[in-house]
Amino acid sequence: MSFPLLQTIDSPADLRRLPRAQLKQLADELRAYVLESVSKTGGHLGSNLGTVELTVALHYVFNTPEDRLVWDVGHQTYPHKVLTGRRDRMPGLRQLGGISGFPRRDESEYDTFGTGHSSTSISAAHGMAMAAKIKGEDRKAVAIIGDGAMTAGMAFEALNNAGVAHGGLMGDVLVILNDNDMSISPPVGALNKYLARLMSGSFYAAAREGAKSVLKNTPLYEFARRFEEHTKGMVVPGTIFEEFGFNYVGPIDGHDLDSLIPTLENLRDRGGPQFLHVVTKKGAGYKLAEADPVKYHAASGKFDPAVGFVKSATPAKPTFTQIFGEWLCDMAEQDPRLVGITPAMREGSGMVEFHKRFPTRYHDVGIAEQHSVTFAAGLACEGLKPVVAIYSTFLQRAYDQLVHDVALQNLDVLFALDRAGLVGADGATHAGNYDIAFTRCIPLMSVLTPADENECRQALYTGYQHVGPVTVRYPRGAGVGTAIEKDMQAWPWGKGEIRRESGKAQGRAGAPRIAILAFGTVLYPALQAAEQLDATVANMRFVKPLDVDLVRQLAESHDAFVTVEEGCIMGGAGSAVMEALQAMGLNLPVLQLGLPDQFVEHGDPAKLMAQCGLDAAGIAQSILQRFGARPELLRPAANE
Amino acid sequence: MSFPLLQTIDSPADLRRLPRAQLKQLADELRAYVLESVSKTGGHLGSNLGTVELTVALHYVFNTPEDRLVWDVGHQTYPHKVLTGRRDRMPGLRQLGGISGFPRRDESEYDTFGTGHSSTSISAAHGMAMAAKIKGEDRKAVAIIGDGAMTAGMAFEALNNAGVAHGGLMGDVLVILNDNDMSISPPVGALNKYLARLMSGSFYAAAREGAKSVLKNTPLYEFARRFEEHTKGMVVPGTIFEEFGFNYVGPIDGHDLDSLIPTLENLRDRGGPQFLHVVTKKGAGYKLAEADPVKYHAASGKFDPAVGFVKSATPAKPTFTQIFGEWLCDMAEQDPRLVGITPAMREGSGMVEFHKRFPTRYHDVGIAEQHSVTFAAGLACEGLKPVVAIYSTFLQRAYDQLVHDVALQNLDVLFALDRAGLVGADGATHAGNYDIAFTRCIPLMSVLTPADENECRQALYTGYQHVGPVTVRYPRGAGVGTAIEKDMQAWPWGKGEIRRESGKAQGRAGAPRIAILAFGTVLYPALQAAEQLDATVANMRFVKPLDVDLVRQLAESHDAFVTVEEGCIMGGAGSAVMEALQAMGLNLPVLQLGLPDQFVEHGDPAKLMAQCGLDAAGIAQSILQRFGARPELLRPAANE
Repeated sequence: MSFPLLQTIDSPADLRRLPRAQLKQLADELRAYVLESVSKTGGHLGSNLGTVELTVALHYVFNTPEDRLVWDVGHQTYPHKVLTGRRDRMPGLRQLGGISGFPRRDESEYDTFGTGHSSTSISAAHGMAMAAKIKGEDRKAVAIIGDGAMTAGMAFEALNNAGVAHGGLMGDVLVILNDNDMSISPPVGALNKYLARLMSGSFYAAAREGAKSVLKNTPLYEFARRFEEHTKGMVVPGTIFEEFGFNYVGPIDGHDLDSLIPTLENLRDRGGPQFLHVVTKKGAGYKLAEADPVKYHAASGKFDPAVGFVKSATPAKPTFTQIFGEWLCDMAEQDPRLVGITPAMREGSGMVEFHKRFPTRYHDVGIAEQHSVTFAAGLACEGLKPVVAIYSTFLQRAYDQLVHDVALQNLDVLFALDRAGLVGADGATHAGNYDIAFTRCIPLMSVLTPADENECRQALYTGYQHVGPVTVRYPRGAGVGTAIEKDMQAWPWGKGEIRRESGKAQGRAGAPRIAILAFGTVLYPALQAAEQLDATVANMRFVKPLDVDLVRQLAESHDAFVTVEEGCIMGGAGSAVMEALQAMGLNLPVLQLGLPDQFVEHGDPAKLMAQCGLDAAGIAQSILQRFGARPELLRPAANE
Repeated sequence: MSFPLLQTIDSPADLRRLPRAQLKQLADELRAYVLESVSKTGGHLGSNLGTVELTVALHYVFNTPEDRLVWDVGHQTYPHKVLTGRRDRMPGLRQLGGISGFPRRDESEYDTFGTGHSSTSISAAHGMAMAAKIKGEDRKAVAIIGDGAMTAGMAFEALNNAGVAHGGLMGDVLVILNDNDMSISPPVGALNKYLARLMSGSFYAAAREGAKSVLKNTPLYEFARRFEEHTKGMVVPGTIFEEFGFNYVGPIDGHDLDSLIPTLENLRDRGGPQFLHVVTKKGAGYKLAEADPVKYHAASGKFDPAVGFVKSATPAKPTFTQIFGEWLCDMAEQDPRLVGITPAMREGSGMVEFHKRFPTRYHDVGIAEQHSVTFAAGLACEGLKPVVAIYSTFLQRAYDQLVHDVALQNLDVLFALDRAGLVGADGATHAGNYDIAFTRCIPLMSVLTPADENECRQALYTGYQHVGPVTVRYPRGAGVGTAIEKDMQAWPWGKGEIRRESGKAQGRAGAPRIAILAFGTVLYPALQAAEQLDATVANMRFVKPLDVDLVRQLAESHDAFVTVEEGCIMGGAGSAVMEALQAMGLNLPVLQLGLPDQFVEHGDPAKLMAQCGLDAAGIAQSILQRFGARPELLRPAANE
């Protein structure tokens, strides 16, 4: 395909030099370019096809980058990236060393605010708008937020704050509600219904128009007008956005440049908090995506646009997400107390089947992590057993609710933490690196780290049996491919197991030995490394309660520990082992392997794990580096 | 005073047996009892005087504890406690071993949900209501929430979720908005203005009535009625609560039992989501509190009701909060980039003076911790320097924003973490025990722990100079009383200092030695303990970046480490020291002293610190216990 107009646009300034009449063609080329590009790299699709015209119009009307565009979530910024000098970098999208799938401040001056998690844009844009006022600068800040993201509490907190003056200053912030009737999962909640009412036009303004036309040719018209004026004077309620202090305009067609451009120009020239309600179609212009927006939300890899997404012929290994989904159904069948909760991640968390089979016990609460956890707490108070399925990175959104509402009251809630550890193409915004550190410091919490598919099922069962708050963390994607036992058996609580004993394989009994204490799926590369080094390997299973008996036993029979986890080293499971050692008065060299104290970029998961030294070769190398090539030399002289 | 009627009420069942006509007297006695009680123990005052009639009415109308009352924040539950069998325990309120100042599930079956932090009640009540539906039980759930708490995002998340059916089930939840035009600080935000409009009665329903009376006696009445019907059919917008799917009733006078009781009876008997807007007066019935509700929000100790709160004659040592407030003003004078942000804690965070002097650079964003942090991130993007003043326990509410919006983008935001560590009378809900663990695991964060008043000022200055996210944590109340140097000097970044060297005082040079590494104000008890034991003491100042050179130096010259911090041991500063030791290949016995892995109850701060072994005697005792009475025996044989 060729893109004659698009290839002349290397910046929004080029775009703004185009005659207005050419913008339609540019938008068409941009859409085709994005589709072609994503079909080669994978990545988010539907949301990007839906924002093509809006992106063109925004860069046309606003003086970017002087005016600030903040894209909520940011997975809809591919058209924005293409128009802001990154057209030729699209083939490297979401790949190691390539550009990010989200806006990033260090990638472009047009990316004014890094996003990834939802619902932050109004807060950030309000900050930028207030900063301009404080500094006496004349620039606009625009937040573009989807209807799904609008359900999150922090969007309301931001509206509540941005709709009033502060110290006599009022920010020039424009909130654009990109209403495509979708988050990733189908929409839920009262706000969505409300937006649907606004969209259907059956709203006061429309009603008023309707009434007028009925009345127009009657002698009563004047009286009706006065009636209307009277009620208006009494403050007739507007949209909820007007109640929050915004000037509400819309809904308008977000694919119609002839509507978008004059409306945006008008809003740009007004001061104070403005709200534009734009209606777009996810996947617009690509028939397959329009027809099934949930499926076409994102492409996991390459595809032929003419054919669409096809399932790979060979059945892949089940992902941990699928293991969870199956376990959830099986568990729900056994126990009528089970209630499954997701904050808007039905597909991502593997709950489609559960939703179908147990509709009264399924709760998608919307993008509302805080509420999801405290809602679960309320259910638990009544003797039900909530299972909150939530990505590790999104549990950060509900941290206080975990501490204050669940753990403090020792409520019986199971947290299924998907995407724990590195997440690959989504990168640092979505990394689940911190949950071990931030959950294990909470009293009464238990933290389980299954090592493979079957362990995941059994760990979920084990955590479910335990009365009190438990997290079971498992990574993105598939594991090593262990067979799954349908039968569920609870693990002995707080007990790990020895998977390999040093000295046996190579007959080195009596020689100084290394014990590798593995937490989670890193058990398998640890086992491989241990073969090379003849180390003992323990599958710890529990970060909390930690198996202190096993720790003691290993400490007494080994000369050094290596802890391995797919989580941050700082405050992680390895630190828990050291705390336990010291609390027992034991003193041993410990090498902590895990994720480094830096934000890890996006890229291929296997490569990233290798980069972090968490593949078998990396683990072996780190051990050799720290403790020397010969196990006989392990007892370090330098420390004494 | 005598309480003839009140003393016959040992449970809500007793209350429900009273003739309706006696309830007014009961309310009056209850108010007097609460005032007298708080005047003897200290505690929250204004909010409790404001909810007397509402409490009486709720227990009269609803079948408690079968029906569930969830009190948001929970500091307004003293009347509820008195009526639910805890009248005689009020003298022990908020004291060690006494009843809590908040509802607690383990204290009474009438306390259906523990609160302390705000805005959780609708989520919890919705959970309880849905649980009743799932279980087929016929009970009601009621959330009582203030207008301040309503600004927090999670309240909206809950409304959005509770206003629609799930799997065909709709919970019977009643939300009572207790609108006293106050959070702790004066109200802010658009929602508050909106509620004021509702309260003033200038709303559609009233407008409609007004219009009718104009029209009533004219021949056009019928047409106007039809006009109204017509617009109604088109969905005339209601209050925002109606837009969220709730049946809105109100506003009604929350001190008038004759309004409250029939309205509550009516709402009780309706199914689905109900919303009652009640207007109350903080401090009602106590003139002094009515006149100055901010001042009379809470009593720090005893007072004479006839006189009111009086400032103690002898000026107390300045609190850390005051040190912060002064520093903030001084810093703002020096640097026009500084913007101060508080999530509704102007008084608690010491920002009254800053607000007065720098109104355009002061932002109270309401109870909206998530927004406060991302708003700060937006300001920082524009080159301003936000200082977010937030309690340690409330930063838990903005954890994801700290990770995802601030640290990931390495934005230049300073967090002043007040109430870090134990908080005394407020208890476990407000404990700031976890921030070291949950902040230091985040890449690019810096974590500072000043040891006294002057250090607090210098640490804030040091953190402010640093470009990037920094927390400076300091405890509730006053420190040891060090003189404050007006002049501000930045500390060497990432460097601690030795405060006491072992072996010198008692001439034991050459003998095995202990080094105490203290983080924060526990430096002072550590120094006292060190005198007893002749230990070295380092004032570490930085948890992150940790002074690894100092750690190495101390490790090389000592035989054992003791780390001391007012924060959870798990994942805390002591663990950071152990991680550093091991990363350097150093191996030393380490005794970690800090807060235990359990929720610490409310009570006198000094007693609680002693209970946790963090006073001088406790520190010395723990060291002796671990390492033996004679320092000469410190090198432990058992580990080798």
